[in-house]
Amino acid sequence: MKKIFFVILLLFAFTVNAQTILSPSKQVSLDFKLTANGIPTYAVTYKNKPVVLQSSMGIYLKDGSNLATNFSSEGKKNITFNESWKPVLGEQSSIVNHYNEMTVALSQAGTNRKMNIIFKVYDEGVAFRYEFPKQKDLNYFIIKEEKTEFNLAGNHKAFWIPGDFDSQEYEYNETLLSGVDTEKINLNNGIGVKSIAAKYAVQSPLMMKSADGLYINIFEAATVNYPVMHLELNPKTFGLTSILAPNAIGDKAYLQAPCVSPWRTIMVSDDARTIVSSKMTLNLNEPSKIEDTSWIKPMKYVGIWWEMHVGKSTWDYAGSQNAQNTETRELIASGKHGATTENTKRYIDFAAKHGFDGVLVEGWNVGWEDWFGNWKEDVFDFVTPYPDYNLAEINAYAKSKGVKMIMHHETSGSVANYERHLDRALELMKKYGYPAAKSGYVGKIIPRGEFHDGQSMVNHYNHVARRFADYKLMVNSHESSRPTGYHRTYPNYIAAEAARGNEFNAWSNGNPPMHETILPFTRLLGGPMDYTPGIFEIKMSAYDKTKKEQVHTTLAKQLALYVTMYSPLQMAADLPENYEKYPDAFQFIKDVAADWQDSKYLEAEPGDYLTVARKDKKSENWFLGAITDENARTSEIKLDFLSPNKKYKATIYQDGKTAHWEKNPINYEIKTMTVTSKSKLKLVLAAGGGTAISFTPIN
Amino acid sequence: MKKIFFVILLLFAFTVNAQTILSPSKQVSLDFKLTANGIPTYAVTYKNKPVVLQSSMGIYLKDGSNLATNFSSEGKKNITFNESWKPVLGEQSSIVNHYNEMTVALSQAGTNRKMNIIFKVYDEGVAFRYEFPKQKDLNYFIIKEEKTEFNLAGNHKAFWIPGDFDSQEYEYNETLLSGVDTEKINLNNGIGVKSIAAKYAVQSPLMMKSADGLYINIFEAATVNYPVMHLELNPKTFGLTSILAPNAIGDKAYLQAPCVSPWRTIMVSDDARTIVSSKMTLNLNEPSKIEDTSWIKPMKYVGIWWEMHVGKSTWDYAGSQNAQNTETRELIASGKHGATTENTKRYIDFAAKHGFDGVLVEGWNVGWEDWFGNWKEDVFDFVTPYPDYNLAEINAYAKSKGVKMIMHHETSGSVANYERHLDRALELMKKYGYPAAKSGYVGKIIPRGEFHDGQSMVNHYNHVARRFADYKLMVNSHESSRPTGYHRTYPNYIAAEAARGNEFNAWSNGNPPMHETILPFTRLLGGPMDYTPGIFEIKMSAYDKTKKEQVHTTLAKQLALYVTMYSPLQMAADLPENYEKYPDAFQFIKDVAADWQDSKYLEAEPGDYLTVARKDKKSENWFLGAITDENARTSEIKLDFLSPNKKYKATIYQDGKTAHWEKNPINYEIKTMTVTSKSKLKLVLAAGGGTAISFTPIN
Repeated sequence: MKKIFFVILLLFAFTVNAQTILSPSKQVSLDFKLTANGIPTYAVTYKNKPVVLQSSMGIYLKDGSNLATNFSSEGKKNITFNESWKPVLGEQSSIVNHYNEMTVALSQAGTNRKMNIIFKVYDEGVAFRYEFPKQKDLNYFIIKEEKTEFNLAGNHKAFWIPGDFDSQEYEYNETLLSGVDTEKINLNNGIGVKSIAAKYAVQSPLMMKSADGLYINIFEAATVNYPVMHLELNPKTFGLTSILAPNAIGDKAYLQAPCVSPWRTIMVSDDARTIVSSKMTLNLNEPSKIEDTSWIKPMKYVGIWWEMHVGKSTWDYAGSQNAQNTETRELIASGKHGATTENTKRYIDFAAKHGFDGVLVEGWNVGWEDWFGNWKEDVFDFVTPYPDYNLAEINAYAKSKGVKMIMHHETSGSVANYERHLDRALELMKKYGYPAAKSGYVGKIIPRGEFHDGQSMVNHYNHVARRFADYKLMVNSHESSRPTGYHRTYPNYIAAEAARGNEFNAWSNGNPPMHETILPFTRLLGGPMDYTPGIFEIKMSAYDKTKKEQVHTTLAKQLALYVTMYSPLQMAADLPENYEKYPDAFQFIKDVAADWQDSKYLEAEPGDYLTVARKDKKSENWFLGAITDENARTSEIKLDFLSPNKKYKATIYQDGKTAHWEKNPINYEIKTMTVTSKSKLKLVLAAGGGTAISFTPIN
Repeated sequence: MKKIFFVILLLFAFTVNAQTILSPSKQVSLDFKLTANGIPTYAVTYKNKPVVLQSSMGIYLKDGSNLATNFSSEGKKNITFNESWKPVLGEQSSIVNHYNEMTVALSQAGTNRKMNIIFKVYDEGVAFRYEFPKQKDLNYFIIKEEKTEFNLAGNHKAFWIPGDFDSQEYEYNETLLSGVDTEKINLNNGIGVKSIAAKYAVQSPLMMKSADGLYINIFEAATVNYPVMHLELNPKTFGLTSILAPNAIGDKAYLQAPCVSPWRTIMVSDDARTIVSSKMTLNLNEPSKIEDTSWIKPMKYVGIWWEMHVGKSTWDYAGSQNAQNTETRELIASGKHGATTENTKRYIDFAAKHGFDGVLVEGWNVGWEDWFGNWKEDVFDFVTPYPDYNLAEINAYAKSKGVKMIMHHETSGSVANYERHLDRALELMKKYGYPAAKSGYVGKIIPRGEFHDGQSMVNHYNHVARRFADYKLMVNSHESSRPTGYHRTYPNYIAAEAARGNEFNAWSNGNPPMHETILPFTRLLGGPMDYTPGIFEIKMSAYDKTKKEQVHTTLAKQLALYVTMYSPLQMAADLPENYEKYPDAFQFIKDVAADWQDSKYLEAEPGDYLTVARKDKKSENWFLGAITDENARTSEIKLDFLSPNKKYKATIYQDGKTAHWEKNPINYEIKTMTVTSKSKLKLVLAAGGGTAISFTPIN
């Protein structure tokens, strides 16, 4: 690893009650100030425009004391840091981590307690965290509230979803901040468990755009041993205040000094591409704690999953999730069970034929008759297959075909149960050679009273990643809290869902066409998303004529998502028979890489469009994805990201002339041409459409 | 197994709104009646004296509905059952289970819901449970309250401890029911975590004596997937109502039909010996689910434990439980750590020399610097020894000496953490050949908000027993909920503490002399207790002249406890050097058995005295233990329990002439004589004293 490391260390100096720190580019400025009451505050500007007005910081404890007022400064310490590091998997092979840091040491009058605030100022924004040093007068403590303010400078346009301690599976609302109101939106859109924090509560990452063209994003990084931060808006002042997800008895976090809070981040730029391509969240996390990472590999996979969503088969063996009690009566096969030995072999054959790395099978194990919705603790054991699923036979067959099986661990929210079975579940995976598992947290959490976003659950997801690492296994969590870059530290935490995925299109109002243009500005800032793209049979009426549900994109846009929606774990989510209908379009999914040397964000506007080009890590091939929202779009892009003095064959998968996400979604055309780094290309995207391009060097 | 099995089956007959059922002896009578509002009620008499006056039964659900009113009877079913079965370990080699049973089938107007109440009437009392059959209109349900009443017939004398969801480690109060008041007693007597249910809440088992000489005991049996039942007293009417321990959000139990509640039991007799010797609680549990029980064996053990209680050494390595953070700094040895390799070898030598089966070592593993009192989740990993404790060396040494090591799993109440480490902890035990572990639950429970007595925790203790059984390991839980006979079903759950043990004598006001005369009527009805008797150095001033604490018995009574306090796991709790001072008295501890062919309760009065003789399961030896409270006592006992036509050498360990628990506790004398089954023996017990006798056949 190449490291460039500059440190300028000023030993703790005299009392500093006000201090300014600039980004390396000097365009981002952070002002720290202690008020007359000893309350720490900060403010952020970008190119001299206000981004965050003076805002308070502080922690309130359960015992009635606080770490928020009566502080005086004992000094500060400044560092300039510049390093590049190589992620195991990623959007680029090398990442620069360059910032100016200031640590302010605070001491509280009356209590003798110390707290530091560490600020890092990057060219794309600001991060800060609370640090609680080892000290005599603060050892174990319980956080009642964190009151970190983000006082915004105006009534920005915001892309928001309700602040919900149990789910992020919402469609985005695009309104002014003054229009935020969780009571005025449709919450009944396919989401099983909801725990809305407050009327004006929104989730982070919160993406905004100011009237004067600034892109602003509020988020957090390195959420470890701490609950998820949501945000409560004052719709009159446009001030945001942190809301931490509580535990069953209303406490927020149990900590022991020395320790730190997660980073609170404010990204800002006048170029949306700076936000969407930022690696600040990753940079704020600790380096990998896994020494040998050779077993962490990108995977493209198919699986028995979408067929349940479209109603062709069921997860459960006995049918219709009718809560038959498996302990006291024999299960009677319904005949609709998806995870059979025979059906799995069909997927294995398909994967082998088309070069996919893995096959995921959901519904393979006993327990699905009465999983979600019953708050049942003892629901799955993660090792017992249904009688029609022959674990040994399937794994031997997959091995003979050179395909890896992907394990599935649905917990039904019963985390206590999962943890007590986890070692056995992972032993089973090792026994059969599974490299990875998809986990799921559908339903209310057990221990009862806990939320998906609470400190205990955050600790659980991270614990699971570490346990998987013990066994050299990868994990892809669904319905977990949203990632905040912890996959830098545990790169076997290869992907997560933690947002509204493609499956909502199968049985709810779905994901509106703008959805995938927002996710890269929000959810994906924290880590790769297993969005499960690649649906070719767009309309559910293909399965059942009475159905009105559909995927809200064109087929070409489904291809483009493999590039725009970064993940080293990518599913070809549709049924084999649907891919076999469109083998020419399917070729792009077969060809596209999942791990990258470099990524170039060419065009970006949250809620509207995104165009990104990426270079395969293992070859000279480039891939481009361009997507738009409900509006058709034409643009011209320069191919100057291609290597100079090379010719490439470009294979362009684009919307057909009459394509439209709703009226004619499957209409696409494929053309090839020879291009160089000097070429320009006109992209023509239908409403809800997209373009996918592969560039292959011509020798 | 010899089985005598009589069944009289009456198919569900016509509606029964009132019904009487008698015990096999016809002395216990139970009346069932539905009120005009369809509320099920029952009443109990013994020899025509009222024991429980008409009392309501019923369950209230979280959804606002109930299973308590508007019932009509759909019929009843009667069975007579008589069987004998052989416990794996026990007070006797064969147990008779003989009762008359009536099941009343109830149907609720308006809801179409069904509930059965099953009554079993034994010669020593009554048991009943709620049964929720599989039905369309009741599947998953959440219990908000169980309101089972026990309306007593008078202001009985009661031996009570406060109804506390987190602890039973109280000294008993002996008052009339009208004197029960948890706000008027000393609660600060060495108990770490307390959650008192209500002002008039008491625990079950609740032992009482009526003015007309009836011994009455209210308890429960087979508490499985259900919280612990406490009792709330109406001090004016002497009515008791069940209080179930809640979870973090106030719910009591999550159930799915078909299922059952635990048994609610009312034992009654005019002879206290009938209560104290009853096997009703065991009989109400399911037979063993472990097929091969050959590895479940009684054990006598010594260990590194009492030396921490007397202040000679510490559990933690770095000293004084000062919350050093093991994650961020090196631990610095204090020099007082008890669990060193060297010290352990000393105990192993001692165990080998004196024929003990095992050596327990507490404080062997990293985590004790900041365990209890901090509500810390990630406290122990159960596999990492302190640097001065060489696991491999110690286990090899013990093996070479023919001694087994007993593992220690203190959880510090962090159950989530224990469950996620359990398989690894048990693998470690198997690796080194540990046959058993002592577990501990000192501190507030994590998941936070849960209580020691809640449904989740009951499930946890039972889960642990089953997991241990998977590995053919035995478990002895401390600070768990009190047992209710589940060791019949999982006989590897070899013992528990779950009451105020001997260690309280070392550092609190201690256990008053009557304490051990009450436990057999309360705590021990549910299962064996690891009371840790055998303290010879009675006064703590021996360790530190400023100390006033002491064991509240004579030395001879400490010997007698090995017989009166039934457990197949018995510790010789004192320090090796203290036993070496009194080798003649120590001989009884070396000789006494821990598993029995038969037991004869010769004399019994709760709060006053207890005399029991037991026959070793593997020999013709008998052992007798007699204890008294703070009053000296003389009695004459017949030795007619001995085999006729056999001579025995009796070795009598009794209080010396000036012995007194407080003034002269170590004063004892040992004499031998030859006796037969026709002999009578005069027992002379000092205040707080006891007598222990071994009877060895003379060939």
